[in-house]
Amino acid sequence: MEAEFVFELPDAEILYRALKVEEKHVLTETQIDLIDGKLIIRIKAEDLAELRASVNAWLRTIKACLDVL
Amino acid sequence: MEAEFVFELPDAEILYRALKVEEKHVLTETQIDLIDGKLIIRIKAEDLAELRASVNAWLRTIKACLDVL
Repeated sequence: MEAEFVFELPDAEILYRALKVEEKHVLTETQIDLIDGKLIIRIKAEDLAELRASVNAWLRTIKACLDVL
Repeated sequence: MEAEFVFELPDAEILYRALKVEEKHVLTETQIDLIDGKLIIRIKAEDLAELRASVNAWLRTIKACLDVL
C-alpha cells in the first residue's frame, strides 16, 4: 500500500528541510522530495494499519511545522 | 494540497465498487479509480485540516470494508 502527498505551499522548502532529516528515522518506508517547489511525501506500508499510523504521524508533523511558521 | 493512495489488494475491485458510489457524496474533491487491478484514491483539499479529515475518513471507510470482507 502506498500514499503520495503533494503540498504546494509558500513554505514548501522550509518544510522540506525540516522533514527531510526525519526521513530515515521512521519505521515506515518514506521518501521526501522537493520537486518544482512542491513538497512530495511518498509512504510505502505493509498494511492499512501501518499506512494509517504513518500518514497521521506525517500530517500531524506538517501541521506542527506550519503552526510555527 | 493533494493525496493519492494506491492499494494493491486481492479485494481491490470489490472495494472499488463499494467506494465509487461515495465519490460524489463527499465534501472534499475525490476521484476513485481501478487501474490494473489497483485501487487509486486521489484527494484534493484546500488546506491541511480538510486533507487530514478526508484522508482519515477514507482510510476508516476502507478499514471498515476490509474488516467485513
